[in-house]
Amino acid sequence: MDEFAYRDGALHCEGVPLTSVAEQFGTPTYVYSASTLIDHYRRFAKAFDAINPLVCFSAKALSNVHLLRLLGREGAGVDAVSGGELHRAMLAGIDPERTVLAGVGKSETELREAVRRDIRCINVESEAEVELLSRIARQEGRRPRLAIRVNPDVAPDERTPARTTTGTRGGKFGVDIDRAATLFNRAAADDALRVEGFHVHLGSPIFDPQVYATAIDRLLALVAMLEQAGHRITTLNLGGGFPAEYLDHTAPSWDDFAEVIIARMADFTARGGQVIFEPGRTIAANAGVLISTVRYLKQAGERQLVVLDAGMTHLARAALYDSYHFIWPLQPPAEATPGSRDVSGLAGLTEYDVVGPICESSDYLARARSLPELKAGAHLAIFTAGAYGMTMTSNYNSQQRPAEVLVHGDQVRLIRRRETYDDLVALELLDEVDGQ
Amino acid sequence: MDEFAYRDGALHCEGVPLTSVAEQFGTPTYVYSASTLIDHYRRFAKAFDAINPLVCFSAKALSNVHLLRLLGREGAGVDAVSGGELHRAMLAGIDPERTVLAGVGKSETELREAVRRDIRCINVESEAEVELLSRIARQEGRRPRLAIRVNPDVAPDERTPARTTTGTRGGKFGVDIDRAATLFNRAAADDALRVEGFHVHLGSPIFDPQVYATAIDRLLALVAMLEQAGHRITTLNLGGGFPAEYLDHTAPSWDDFAEVIIARMADFTARGGQVIFEPGRTIAANAGVLISTVRYLKQAGERQLVVLDAGMTHLARAALYDSYHFIWPLQPPAEATPGSRDVSGLAGLTEYDVVGPICESSDYLARARSLPELKAGAHLAIFTAGAYGMTMTSNYNSQQRPAEVLVHGDQVRLIRRRETYDDLVALELLDEVDGQ
Ligand SMILES: Cc1ncc(COP(=O)(O)O)c(C=O)c1O
Ligand SMILES: Cc1ncc(COP(=O)(O)O)c(C=O)c1O
Repeated sequence: MDEFAYRDGALHCEGVPLTSVAEQFGTPTYVYSASTLIDHYRRFAKAFDAINPLVCFSAKALSNVHLLRLLGREGAGVDAVSGGELHRAMLAGIDPERTVLAGVGKSETELREAVRRDIRCINVESEAEVELLSRIARQEGRRPRLAIRVNPDVAPDERTPARTTTGTRGGKFGVDIDRAATLFNRAAADDALRVEGFHVHLGSPIFDPQVYATAIDRLLALVAMLEQAGHRITTLNLGGGFPAEYLDHTAPSWDDFAEVIIARMADFTARGGQVIFEPGRTIAANAGVLISTVRYLKQAGERQLVVLDAGMTHLARAALYDSYHFIWPLQPPAEATPGSRDVSGLAGLTEYDVVGPICESSDYLARARSLPELKAGAHLAIFTAGAYGMTMTSNYNSQQRPAEVLVHGDQVRLIRRRETYDDLVALELLDEVDGQ
Repeated sequence: MDEFAYRDGALHCEGVPLTSVAEQFGTPTYVYSASTLIDHYRRFAKAFDAINPLVCFSAKALSNVHLLRLLGREGAGVDAVSGGELHRAMLAGIDPERTVLAGVGKSETELREAVRRDIRCINVESEAEVELLSRIARQEGRRPRLAIRVNPDVAPDERTPARTTTGTRGGKFGVDIDRAATLFNRAAADDALRVEGFHVHLGSPIFDPQVYATAIDRLLALVAMLEQAGHRITTLNLGGGFPAEYLDHTAPSWDDFAEVIIARMADFTARGGQVIFEPGRTIAANAGVLISTVRYLKQAGERQLVVLDAGMTHLARAALYDSYHFIWPLQPPAEATPGSRDVSGLAGLTEYDVVGPICESSDYLARARSLPELKAGAHLAIFTAGAYGMTMTSNYNSQQRPAEVLVHGDQVRLIRRRETYDDLVALELLDEVDGQ
C-alpha cells in the first residue's frame, strides 16, 4: 500500500501530480512519499508490537538525511554500515541508543567513532574485529556494547538474488555458527567489552517467513547453550530482508513474518531480551519512484526501444540484479490507466525495451515491456525505487546524480539537489586539491 | 608495458614507492603513472601512424581532468558521452576540433552544447536524434558535423563480456547497418547538417583483430555504395575496444590490430578520409593501480578471507563483470616478489578470497587467489585499475570515493582528494538545498 496513485489522468504522489514535480525539478528525480514511509514504518513496528523490537532502519537502502530524520521522529533507529552512515544518522538526530553499526570491514576510525558515541550495538563479524574493538575500547576508556554476527548457513528461497544472499556458509559475512560460542566466550571474558548477543541477516529480499524461522531456531539453540553455561544474552538482532512489492501482492504481509517470528521470540523478550530489526527495502522501496523523461524512440533490429534520461547510473538494480521495476507514464491515455501492475488487460499497448543513456549494453531498465505508445518528452515513473535506488547511483559516464524530492500531502520539498557539471569535478580542481 | 615494478622490496610507480603514497594519502587511492599513460598514447598513435588517425581518448574509462589534460598535451582528443564529459574535456583544454560526442541518449542540452562548441563530430544513434540535431542546428545558426553510428552486427570474441558487447543486432547502440544509408541520405539532404561519415564501436575489450576487420569491411561496403551514389564520406570512427593486460601477454599488440586496420583503411585515408579512434582501456588500464589496506583476516567455512578497505564501490569491475585483477602486496616477502603475473612458482603462498567492506555478497575482488601471507595493515595493489576504475565508483553504503594521485618520475601529486563525510551529504543540507 502506498501513496502513488493515478487520479485525474496523472500519477500523483499523495496530493501532488508528478508531472508538476518533473516540471519544477527536472528529471531524473527520485520522489518519496512521506506518508508512505511513515505508514510503512508504523505498520512494520506494529506488526511486531508483541515483542516490542527496536527497529533500526537500514540506511544503505535509503540514506537521505531528511528521510532518516522523518523516520527518527517516528521512533526508528538507524542501522549504519560505515562512518558515512553514522554521520548521516547523527545529522538526522538519531539517538545513539537507537543506532547500530554493521559491516564486515569496519575501519579502526569507524569503530572508534561508534565507541565514542556509545551506540546501542556494534555488530562484529570476526575474531580479529573483536580484538580491534577491545583495543579501541581500552584506549577510549569505554565499554562498547556488541553483538556477534553469526552466519547461520540458511539459504533463502530461490527468489533472493545470489548477489544479496548473505547467510550461507563460506560467505564473507559473520562468524560461522559453530565458532560463534567460542567467540562469544572470548568477548564475554574481556572486561573492556559488553557482548550482549547475536546478529543475523540472511539476504534481501526474502519471501518465505520460514527462512527466518530456520535461522532463529539455530540462533536460539546457540542462546540456550550459552545461557546454560551461565551467560546472559540480552540482544538478538534479526537483520532485514523483508520484501517489497515490485509487482502486486507477491510478497507475504508483515503479519505473516511477525507470526512466525513472534512465536519464536516471545519467550526471549518476556525474559527481558531486546529484539532488533534492520529493515530497509520493506519500508522504503514502495515509498519512492524515479521519474524520468523519454529522450528518443528508436528501432533496433526488430525491437522498439525507448531511450530515457535515466539509466543504470541513476537506478542500478535492473542492470545489476536483473530486477523488475514496474514502469508507466505519468500521464497515460485514459484507457491505459493501470488499476494494478498487471496491465495485460489494457488497450493499445506496445512492446518496448526500456534503456538508459549510458554507454554500456547492460543499461536496460526493462526488456519487452508492454507500455502505452510513447513519445519523446513523455514522463515515466519507475516504481518501487525508494530502496537501493539513490544509494546505488554513480557518476559513470560523468552522469549527474538525480535530485531527491519529498512529498507530504500537497507539500513538495527538494531534499537533495541535482548534481551540476561543477560538482562532478569539484574535488579535482587545483585550488581545492592544493588546499589539502 | 608499464611503470609499476617491484624494486628494493616494494612496488614502485615510476620513481615512487607506493607505500609512501599510502602513508601520505591513505587508502583506497588510485595511483596513475604519467609516463605510462603518455607512453601508451604515443605508442598507440604511432602504431596507426600510416593512417594518421585522430585519437580521441574515451573519457568514460578515465575522466580525471588532470589526466585528460596530460593526454591532450600529447595531441589526444577526447571522446565524450555526456555534457559532464564535454565539460571535463573543456576544463582539460581539449580543442573542440579534437572532441567527439557519442551516446544513445544525449539530451537536447548536451547536443546544444556540442553544437555551440562546434566539436569535431557528433555521433548520432537514431533517426530521432538526427531530427533533434537538425532543429537545434537551425536554432543556433550552426552546421554541426556528424557521423552516424552504425550497428554492424558483429559479435566480438567470447572473451568480451555480454554487458560490454555493443555492436550486435537488436542492441541499443547505433542504427542497423541496413538502415544506415537511408539515414545518411536524409541527413545529407538537410542543409542544417554536415554528415561526414560513420561510427562503430563493437565492444570492450576485443581480443581478436579480425572482429575489427569484419566490421570495417561492412562499413567500407556501405561507404562504397554511398560514394557510388555521389556522396563523399570523409570520417570513419572505428571506436575503441582495444584490450589491456589484465594478465601477462594475453592481448595482441597494437601492431597486430594496426596491421589489420591499416590494410583496410589506407585507401580511405589516401583519398583524404579521416580515421578516428576512441580508445580508453588500452591506454589507461595498465597506467593505474588501486592501492588498498588489509583491514581483517577471517575464516568463513573452509575459506580464508582477507577484508580490504576497497570493495565494489571503489572498483566495480570484479563484482560487476567478474573481471580478473592481479592483486599483490606493496611489500611482499623477498621470495614472493612477482616477476610476472603468473605467480604459480612463488614460495609460501596462501589461498584467499579477497573481499571488500560493502554489505553485499557480490563484493569480492578475487576468489581463491594465491597470495603471500597477509596481515591487517598490509598494503596491496589492485592492478590494471586505470580504466573503468574511478569512473565507476559509487557512494553505496555511504562509502567515500577514493583519492587519485598522479606520479611522474619522483613527483607525486594529488589530483582528486578523497571524499569526506561532509561531501557525502553536501547536496542534502538544508541551506544549500533552500538556495536552489
Ligand atoms: C546487515 C544488514 N542488515 C540489514 C540490511 C537491509 O536489508 P533489507 O533492505 O532487505 O531490509 C542489509 C542489506 O544488505 C544488511 O546487509
Ligand atoms: C562508443 C564508445 N567508444 C569508445 C569506448 C571505449 O572503449 P575502450 O575503453 O574499450 O577502448 C566505448 C566503451 O564503452 C564506447 O561505448
